[in-house]
Amino acid sequence: MSMDTDLALACSLADAAGAAIRPYFRGDFGLEDKADASPVTLADRAAEAAMRRIIGRESPRDGIIGEEFGAERADASRVWVLDPIDGTTSFVAGRPIFGTLIALLQDGWPVLGIIDQPISGERWIGAVGQTTLFNNAPAQSRRCRTLDDAVLATTSPHLFSEHQAEHFLGLAGKVARRRIVYGGDCYNYGLVASGHVDLVVEAGLKLHDFAALVPIVEGSGGTMCDWHGNPLNAGSSGEVIALGDPARLEDVLEALAHQHCA
Amino acid sequence: MSMDTDLALACSLADAAGAAIRPYFRGDFGLEDKADASPVTLADRAAEAAMRRIIGRESPRDGIIGEEFGAERADASRVWVLDPIDGTTSFVAGRPIFGTLIALLQDGWPVLGIIDQPISGERWIGAVGQTTLFNNAPAQSRRCRTLDDAVLATTSPHLFSEHQAEHFLGLAGKVARRRIVYGGDCYNYGLVASGHVDLVVEAGLKLHDFAALVPIVEGSGGTMCDWHGNPLNAGSSGEVIALGDPARLEDVLEALAHQHCA
Repeated sequence: MSMDTDLALACSLADAAGAAIRPYFRGDFGLEDKADASPVTLADRAAEAAMRRIIGRESPRDGIIGEEFGAERADASRVWVLDPIDGTTSFVAGRPIFGTLIALLQDGWPVLGIIDQPISGERWIGAVGQTTLFNNAPAQSRRCRTLDDAVLATTSPHLFSEHQAEHFLGLAGKVARRRIVYGGDCYNYGLVASGHVDLVVEAGLKLHDFAALVPIVEGSGGTMCDWHGNPLNAGSSGEVIALGDPARLEDVLEALAHQHCA
Repeated sequence: MSMDTDLALACSLADAAGAAIRPYFRGDFGLEDKADASPVTLADRAAEAAMRRIIGRESPRDGIIGEEFGAERADASRVWVLDPIDGTTSFVAGRPIFGTLIALLQDGWPVLGIIDQPISGERWIGAVGQTTLFNNAPAQSRRCRTLDDAVLATTSPHLFSEHQAEHFLGLAGKVARRRIVYGGDCYNYGLVASGHVDLVVEAGLKLHDFAALVPIVEGSGGTMCDWHGNPLNAGSSGEVIALGDPARLEDVLEALAHQHCA
């Protein structure tokens, strides 16, 4: 299939997920805790089921890895990676900064990604070799002269192990404290692609949390990698950096390599 | 003046602040650091100036305490307390979960409050003795059976002193970890009033950060107080609790009284 066909399919998945999610926002969404203690709602399940139905109909040989319903044909060369609601806790709290994440992996590497915010109607679309789009207009990450000027976002201190937290605080100590924002999940990565946030540093992410973000951030002029500077693929550890200005990558990696001294 | 007149004036302030802020959102907002290292933008200043002009014209004997331009007639019995952008860091990062806060104090006690989110067009209005309104419909906080079920929100771990953080973690340990959301500033308190968030616990807040929230949360059926259970007024310390279900207040105060043991 051509990239245009894949992008059209990915957009139809995002449309279907949004239609499934919107009726549950701030409504009766049936919160449960999964075995790993992460939350799930009827909205997560309805959105992923809707996307899987469309893939099964339109591109039945592709593999699927979804947060809620697991893997099918995960050894296929083309695999869709679905997170129906990234930021379920924000969704549950009624905050419109969660998102649906849709990625296409080719031989384990993310080649297409969508972040869709179905309440505000914001959508970022990225594809390898193409300029990222935000609501159908080109998105561009911004330059960042020094880390001291950077706006740094991260979802929650609880996502870090104690060891990771010490390294994160080593980095946070290089950034002006009042320019660190918490919460936001995938939405922060869209804001990197649009040039409003400079840096996101997180850990504990699963493939469905980060795969879609890579083509979006990279197609905007930014870069994504793990905490050691390695590119992200299906085998990555879940320690993730998104940076709007690749010229600051050495500074970020060096700051992360040091532990915070209290 | 009657409460209706005051509410109409407060709404005109929120309208003016929103009109001043919107052109700067995700635009060229001229970020600076203030002497206390907190960020300020052209949008903060334009919004506060617009509100002060209206108060000066419509109710010139009232006092004003504003985050950006300080105090005038602060010893008046009626004092308007203005925070043009609560959550400036979120505003700077392009996240639509900051808000304009407008409070009216009568002899130091908040009797009227507005939270206005000018991008999403969401507005909470509270007044002593009246039911809180969200976008002109009644807002109601929700019951919470146990702390273990609660959705807990707090803006940033950096707002706590080391000592406060230990007590906050004592409370956080009673709440399911995956139901804690970070970021959000005043927006979280609106979500308490609308029954989507159960509990907000913060410290380091100034009068302009919390005064407007009190009539909104209390008019929805919830309660606000400091970490010792005392009501909030112009002399409060900035340790703040907002709780949708007042029946859980003893549990919250008891959990906060204990330090977290690592």
